Amino acid sequence: MLGNISHISLQLPKKRYSINKLCKKQRWNFNKILEKTGIKFVYRSNKNETALNLAISASKKLNLKRKKIGALIYVTQSPEYHLPTNACVIQDKLKLDKKIIAFDINQGCSGYLYGLYMSKLLLNDSSIKEVLLVCSDTYTKNIKNNNKSCMTIFSDGATASIIKKSKKKKLNFTFLTDGSGGNDLKLLNSGNEFKENLKPELYMNGSKILNFTMANIPTLVKTTLKKENCSIKKIKYFIFHQASKVVIDNLCRILNIPEKKIYRNYARYGNTVSSTIPICLIELKKKKLIKRNDKILLCGFGVGLSASSTIMEV
Amino acid sequence: MLGNISHISLQLPKKRYSINKLCKKQRWNFNKILEKTGIKFVYRSNKNETALNLAISASKKLNLKRKKIGALIYVTQSPEYHLPTNACVIQDKLKLDKKIIAFDINQGCSGYLYGLYMSKLLLNDSSIKEVLLVCSDTYTKNIKNNNKSCMTIFSDGATASIIKKSKKKKLNFTFLTDGSGGNDLKLLNSGNEFKENLKPELYMNGSKILNFTMANIPTLVKTTLKKENCSIKKIKYFIFHQASKVVIDNLCRILNIPEKKIYRNYARYGNTVSSTIPICLIELKKKKLIKRNDKILLCGFGVGLSASSTIMEV
Repeated sequence: MLGNISHISLQLPKKRYSINKLCKKQRWNFNKILEKTGIKFVYRSNKNETALNLAISASKKLNLKRKKIGALIYVTQSPEYHLPTNACVIQDKLKLDKKIIAFDINQGCSGYLYGLYMSKLLLNDSSIKEVLLVCSDTYTKNIKNNNKSCMTIFSDGATASIIKKSKKKKLNFTFLTDGSGGNDLKLLNSGNEFKENLKPELYMNGSKILNFTMANIPTLVKTTLKKENCSIKKIKYFIFHQASKVVIDNLCRILNIPEKKIYRNYARYGNTVSSTIPICLIELKKKKLIKRNDKILLCGFGVGLSASSTIMEV
Repeated sequence: MLGNISHISLQLPKKRYSINKLCKKQRWNFNKILEKTGIKFVYRSNKNETALNLAISASKKLNLKRKKIGALIYVTQSPEYHLPTNACVIQDKLKLDKKIIAFDINQGCSGYLYGLYMSKLLLNDSSIKEVLLVCSDTYTKNIKNNNKSCMTIFSDGATASIIKKSKKKKLNFTFLTDGSGGNDLKLLNSGNEFKENLKPELYMNGSKILNFTMANIPTLVKTTLKKENCSIKKIKYFIFHQASKVVIDNLCRILNIPEKKIYRNYARYGNTVSSTIPICLIELKKKKLIKRNDKILLCGFGVGLSASSTIMEV
């Protein structure tokens, strides 16, 4: 158990790509890029590895007690189709009970926090014992080969988490929503904006997203600490959304967080959107870096622009 | 107030289409179709009337106390783009507080019930005073002219509801999810399934959806009544999703509900997906058909396949 998260599983696409090789091919300066992003490898889905398929595979890796799952939340910005609700398809593929609540949430880098918050609310509702929270995205399907800022950062993957009732103190969440920056990370030509003969295309204004992050996330973290009457000293690990090296470096600098309290794995996975935080949690546990009663601060931020954070006790 | 719904607003596309005229043009038998669907008019959005624009217009019709809105839920299956989260854009356009929770839920005909349920959970969380629940869809954008079953039923529109804390008994919800029927109402060539040079296209197997409804919704309604220790007699109005005449006729027949307890407005609006139930609520109130303490049963069902119902006290 990690707070009220009982299990987390991960499904990555089969193929891992080296950013070094990519840079050689595109004649980009790998060392200069690495200095900023810190990302050495990304995972890119093939044609058959859709977000929905990865989500189902991740969920199947869990030892699901089907009768106990009362709700299914599917967090994605890579829907298989606009309708039906993708979570309904997952319900069927996993043979979950038909009495469950099942819906998709559209959220990106703050998505795991949104999912944890919804899970908390659902578990407050007496009849639900366990929530299956699935995050999956395949941003790389819509990146043009010459889009340096997106190609060297984004990665595909899915995680599935079981959230249970727990005797631990209930999580408190802090939120931030600022749609004025919505155009800074956008899938062009998708949804209603779809134009015939144009493919969906991911666009990111990296420096604007960085500015948003630095202008808002330190305050969000401070508010989260204050709400829990907590301090940086009392937190064992800060699990920030693994946006890239420059983002996390700057957050640490502004907030004055010692490096030993930071967990980083973007070098090996890239930015998998809503799955970065659960992937960090899987590794923290596997590497035995945390023990009972340790406090960890989770903070997701990015596309939307949207952010959320909470402090969890192990 | 309607239970804990304080206000509901509606935004329809400008142009209303006569099904009679459409049938003449397509050489379809209007009387035969009308006998089954009961639908005389539908609203169809033009190029500039996207689900997001309609959603924003509907919300602006409410007398929003911006500082009181703590959460924004946007229910849609017609996203403007896959990212950013459309609710973030609404937050910005309505100038809502940046500390709000904002996310999109993908649900269709059961969407208003999902939204009410999420609102209830959010209001249980002490700090949130009001939830803005926006439903909007533009299914008609993706219907081929010769698709008789979809052309004569679906309609576009948006509603915005303010959900508040109330002293009334909290709503109880019953849910049903059955993804095995997901292919019976689907937007082909959308999302990841998008194929170049193919337009998204709405597909419905009307008889399968009807079978699902008749096999499951009567039981769902009975369960809802039983949970509340209630009977058909004690319900003033049954507000079913306005799927079409044949669906509601059959539900009444199977459940043995007297016609005077049924509210129907599909003839004038068509099937506006997640907005049919709030449009009924607007009219019930306007026509003074309900008074304080009356009980109304709300039941949404369809695409997913997904369904939910609850009993609300006026």
